[in-house]
Amino acid sequence: MIVVKIGGSAGVNIEAVCDDAASIIRAGTRLVIVHGASDTTNSLSQRVGLAPRFVTSPSGHTSRRTDRATLEVLQMACRGGFNQRVVEALQSRGVNAIGLSGMDARIWEGTRKDTIRAIEDGRTVLIRDDFTGTIDTVNSPLLTALLDSGLTPVLCPPAISTNHEPINVDADRAAAQTAAALGADRLLLLSNVPGLLRLFPDESSLITRIARTEIKLAQDLAQGRMKKKVLGAIEALEAGVATVVIGDARPGAPITRALEGAGTTFR
Amino acid sequence: MIVVKIGGSAGVNIEAVCDDAASIIRAGTRLVIVHGASDTTNSLSQRVGLAPRFVTSPSGHTSRRTDRATLEVLQMACRGGFNQRVVEALQSRGVNAIGLSGMDARIWEGTRKDTIRAIEDGRTVLIRDDFTGTIDTVNSPLLTALLDSGLTPVLCPPAISTNHEPINVDADRAAAQTAAALGADRLLLLSNVPGLLRLFPDESSLITRIARTEIKLAQDLAQGRMKKKVLGAIEALEAGVATVVIGDARPGAPITRALEGAGTTFR
Repeated sequence: MIVVKIGGSAGVNIEAVCDDAASIIRAGTRLVIVHGASDTTNSLSQRVGLAPRFVTSPSGHTSRRTDRATLEVLQMACRGGFNQRVVEALQSRGVNAIGLSGMDARIWEGTRKDTIRAIEDGRTVLIRDDFTGTIDTVNSPLLTALLDSGLTPVLCPPAISTNHEPINVDADRAAAQTAAALGADRLLLLSNVPGLLRLFPDESSLITRIARTEIKLAQDLAQGRMKKKVLGAIEALEAGVATVVIGDARPGAPITRALEGAGTTFR
Repeated sequence: MIVVKIGGSAGVNIEAVCDDAASIIRAGTRLVIVHGASDTTNSLSQRVGLAPRFVTSPSGHTSRRTDRATLEVLQMACRGGFNQRVVEALQSRGVNAIGLSGMDARIWEGTRKDTIRAIEDGRTVLIRDDFTGTIDTVNSPLLTALLDSGLTPVLCPPAISTNHEPINVDADRAAAQTAAALGADRLLLLSNVPGLLRLFPDESSLITRIARTEIKLAQDLAQGRMKKKVLGAIEALEAGVATVVIGDARPGAPITRALEGAGTTFR
C-alpha cells in the first residue's frame, strides 16, 4: 500500500504521475492519491477577483488565509477542478478512480482552529473567522472498502470539522495521516522540487537520505512549503509508515523513481 | 428507496430539502440525492468572464453549450460548489453524505454526442466540440454498497463517456436512470415550480395527476426546462419506477409533501 501526495504547483506533471500510477496499480499495488490545489485555487481566486492571501504563524509556517468566501473558491478549484482532472487522467488510463474531498463520508474529520495566530508587521494577531484546522481521524474502513472493490481513491481538502464545517487542511500532513491510518508502507510527497535541499534553491544540494536521528536537521533546513512536507514526513514515520520520500513530480515515472530512491528518503 | 433530484435554481430551499431528507433517512428510508447546478454554473461563468450559452435542439429541448472551458466551469460549480454545499448541509444534520460526480467510479457512464444539432436563426447547424451526452449505465453496485454502509450518495454531472471524457448530462434524466438502476419505488423531481402547469406560468393551473395514458398530454404542455423533467418522468416509469412526482422544492418539507401528493404525480 502506497499513498502518493501530488502538489498542484506549476511544473507538476499530472500525466506522468497518472501513467506511472496506472502501471503500478495494474501490477497489483494498492494506491491512494492525495492532492492539494494551491495553484488552481490561486488562479480561480484571481479569476473571480478575490486576491489570495496567506498568513505566517509564529513558528514560521505559511498557510492560506481561508475565510468563508476563500473556502468556497478552494472547494470549487480543488474538488471540482484539480481533483476531476486527476480522476479523468486516471480513468483514461483504465484506472477506476473515485474523487472525494475530506468532507465526503467524513473521510478526514478534524478540529477547526477557534483562532489562528499570525505574524503581521512583526506583531502577533489573532484571526477568528478562519476555516482551517487539523485532521483527527481518517475514515480508513471506507477507503479500505473502496480499494477492496478495485477503486482508486483520489482525496483532497477540505476536511470536515466535528461541528460539520469544511476546514482547509494541509494536504501533505493529510496524506501522512491517511498513510498512517491505512497502514501504508510508503508515503511519497511529490512536488516541483527534487527533494529536501541543503542549500535551497540549489537543486544540486539534494539530501538523499534522512535517518530518524537526523530529523532535527531536516526541520532546520526546510524552508517555505518544504516545512509542512518535513512535518508530514515526521508524523508519518512516528505513526508507523516505514518509508517517506519527498520527491520530484516533474520528470517521467515520478512514483517509480521515488520508490527507487530518487528524492529525499526518510526512514 | 427514493431518488430525489433537486434543482439548483433560485428559490430552491436546500436547507428545507436537507431537513426533510435527514428525517426520512433517520426513519430508515434509503435515499439518493441527485442535483444539477444550472444557476451556480451560470453564476461562476459570469464571475470568470465566460458568458453562459445555450442551444436549442430541433425538437425544442434547450441545453447548455458545453465546450471544454464551460465544462471545467461546470465541474467546479457543480462538484466543487453546489454538491459540497448539499453534503455540508446533510452532514450538519447527522447524515453521512458522500458527494460524487458521475465521473467518480464511473457512476454514470454514457455516450458523448459526436455532433449536436442546434437551431440558430431558424437554421439547423452542427456543433462538433460539445461535451454533452446521455447515460447508458449506472454503477448501481457501488451505490448499493455505499447505501448498505450507511452513506447517502449525492450525485451530480458530469458523467463519463466510454472514451473517458467528462460529458454534461441532464440531471433530471440522470436521476431517472439512477432511480431505474437502483430499483427505486419513487423518483421526485423537485425544483422552483409547483409541478406541471396546464397554463404555464400560472401556478394555479397545476395538474395533480398524469396517468400513463396521458403522457402525450404532459409532453405537449411542458415548456422550457419542464420538457426534460417530463422526459425523465416518462423514462423512469418505462424503466419500472412506480411513481414519479414533479414537485416544489421551495416550501418546507418538500420531500414529504411530494410523497403525500403535492405536485404532479405520474403513475
